[in-house]
Amino acid sequence: MSVTAPQGFRAAGVAAGLKSTGARDVAVVVNDGPLATAAAVLTSNRVQAAPVLWTRQAVSDGAARAVVLNSGGANACTGPDGFADTHRTAEHVADVLSAAAGPGGEVGAGDVLVCSTGLIGVRLDLPALLGGVDAAVDALHAAGGDEAAHAIMTTDTVAKQALAQRDGWSVGGMAKGAGMLAPGLATMLSVVTTDAVVDAAAADAALRAATRTTFDRVDSDGCLSTNDTVVLLASGASGVEVAEDELAAALTEVCADLSRRLVADAEGASHDIAVTVTNASDEDAAVAVARAVTRSNLFKTAIFGNDPNWGRIVSAVGTVPEHVAPYDPLTLDVTVNGVQVCRAQGVGEPRELVDLAADREVHVEIDLHAGTASATVWTNDLTHDYVHENSAYSS
Amino acid sequence: MSVTAPQGFRAAGVAAGLKSTGARDVAVVVNDGPLATAAAVLTSNRVQAAPVLWTRQAVSDGAARAVVLNSGGANACTGPDGFADTHRTAEHVADVLSAAAGPGGEVGAGDVLVCSTGLIGVRLDLPALLGGVDAAVDALHAAGGDEAAHAIMTTDTVAKQALAQRDGWSVGGMAKGAGMLAPGLATMLSVVTTDAVVDAAAADAALRAATRTTFDRVDSDGCLSTNDTVVLLASGASGVEVAEDELAAALTEVCADLSRRLVADAEGASHDIAVTVTNASDEDAAVAVARAVTRSNLFKTAIFGNDPNWGRIVSAVGTVPEHVAPYDPLTLDVTVNGVQVCRAQGVGEPRELVDLAADREVHVEIDLHAGTASATVWTNDLTHDYVHENSAYSS
Repeated sequence: MSVTAPQGFRAAGVAAGLKSTGARDVAVVVNDGPLATAAAVLTSNRVQAAPVLWTRQAVSDGAARAVVLNSGGANACTGPDGFADTHRTAEHVADVLSAAAGPGGEVGAGDVLVCSTGLIGVRLDLPALLGGVDAAVDALHAAGGDEAAHAIMTTDTVAKQALAQRDGWSVGGMAKGAGMLAPGLATMLSVVTTDAVVDAAAADAALRAATRTTFDRVDSDGCLSTNDTVVLLASGASGVEVAEDELAAALTEVCADLSRRLVADAEGASHDIAVTVTNASDEDAAVAVARAVTRSNLFKTAIFGNDPNWGRIVSAVGTVPEHVAPYDPLTLDVTVNGVQVCRAQGVGEPRELVDLAADREVHVEIDLHAGTASATVWTNDLTHDYVHENSAYSS
Repeated sequence: MSVTAPQGFRAAGVAAGLKSTGARDVAVVVNDGPLATAAAVLTSNRVQAAPVLWTRQAVSDGAARAVVLNSGGANACTGPDGFADTHRTAEHVADVLSAAAGPGGEVGAGDVLVCSTGLIGVRLDLPALLGGVDAAVDALHAAGGDEAAHAIMTTDTVAKQALAQRDGWSVGGMAKGAGMLAPGLATMLSVVTTDAVVDAAAADAALRAATRTTFDRVDSDGCLSTNDTVVLLASGASGVEVAEDELAAALTEVCADLSRRLVADAEGASHDIAVTVTNASDEDAAVAVARAVTRSNLFKTAIFGNDPNWGRIVSAVGTVPEHVAPYDPLTLDVTVNGVQVCRAQGVGEPRELVDLAADREVHVEIDLHAGTASATVWTNDLTHDYVHENSAYSS
């Protein structure tokens, strides 16, 4: 149930002093092969952290041997010096892995991917980070996935891991993310591993397919980060050749599981909300309408108050331009937890029939009557605890 | 300092029982002429309340004699029955105004504009509303603007009025709006009056010009309502002929004043925040970037916490697509209350130099280094009181 569940991987997570709490804050995941296939999906934010710039370049050849991840600082908006810090980190990981492997086991800096998360606009404590790399490489072991998953936590309250077991091969994954959590892809770091035999092109295509309908459909607070990274490493250690669609299905299972865990642990949330749009003209239209609702603060505060205030849903739906989502506003139906409170844009069943207090999970369904496509976007309610967590200290 | 400040207008605001508090909830503003020029700007939400549908039709001939406004119910998403309620309300206003005026003073229902505000998805108490119309028409007087401004309040804590005095003529206005407050135009009701002599085309053009840079640049909580309406009535009673640009300037003054009052009274807010984008490629790009920042919950909670967390500003800027706002992300500068905390996307002056606690007003400036256009969008911080007001009861 972790990145070390598939064969051919070692990992570790150590405390390097980047987090003021003294908790684990540096993780290393190593792919021992025989393959070194790698792919990555990175933030669509135009402001990109140094590790994102580095990883895009390093993974462009479809290969990587290791990922180093740190919490305690995003290394975003830190200029050329920040980029040099990331470069130095990758070099250091490569050096200590090469030394540990001995002759014939050399790793180059270009085979080390880097992920960072934490406050934007602050330089990392590089000596502490490099010390953490030494300790983490020293501690690498074949059951280290759980320690690594803990080391990448920031405001997360639980480590997030997932596993898809197949016949003779598997996909394991870990993720962090609790705030600044919105798609493009979802704001978070994730490492997914597999022991399947796949080439770089299939790995890249399968990873993009999996993230498009999972991490990209989480929108906790509408805020897209500078550091989003999902990395896939394939070791081929199972010896099982896997087709792209099979791999994509297993990756989707793991990414969906991790996405659901991100929503469940979102900062300050008391409800997890699935907004499903049905009978849309196409999938993009369905996603656009769902996202308009998941980004409405009035909708999110109403759910916090256990109030099925469907006027706030319909008014959010109405903000999506017609060229993005063609539909007739007069035909809109809205169902909340099974009760069709809005029918043909008018009053439907009594809103008092909706029970929102019984369960953390809330299901909203919006029927556009405009086609056959559908999509679900997950979000959270907007609570006092969210405001507290995001105003009381910098993160 | 109200809609009855210009010559040729009477108004009243009465308590009709639509609000459970017993406060004033029905307002009538009458234009006694000699002109009956009118224009309106209405919500761009595709889900439109019955009074919006009515007013769009009624004002299409450029003439109106009266506006009736109610709080205590939006009459949105109420279907054909809700539209019949609005129609009936306009007819009733026309009937009682005609009866009061006597022969030769007849008013048609098509000369009565209607505005409603309150909870979506609930029918109005029509007998109470019509009773309120009787009382309001009975109470109309040339100093009634203040009472009308109070009658349109919902979660507003203060009545909002403004006046632009010119040589021999003037523009007066009132507005309500505290929640579901976002542009397209800003979510609110406003009636603006003038005794200038203007024709319908000039009135319409001047009103659109004025709202575009005022109400449309308020974004308190990102939520666009179904009921937004700004109505302009021109009586011509001053006898002063006014050119369109002169009228637009006076209207802009009044609308800007009212907009600032909306921001100052936004639900639960503790800071009013002006986000100014400078050196953009064009004005639309500047507005798009400013709006991305004003819609970031992480930015808004940081300001509530008096935390100049500029990483949340830069990351929001980075979400605007390049085709919308061309700029080089590596050149971004951000200044908060006069301190340039981010320079060329990197660390600038120490963030500790920024004082956010001293004043309710906060000024953020983002320099795109991409042209010469600029724009300011106003918003508020995201506070515990906002969450409380919007979760504790339906509105």
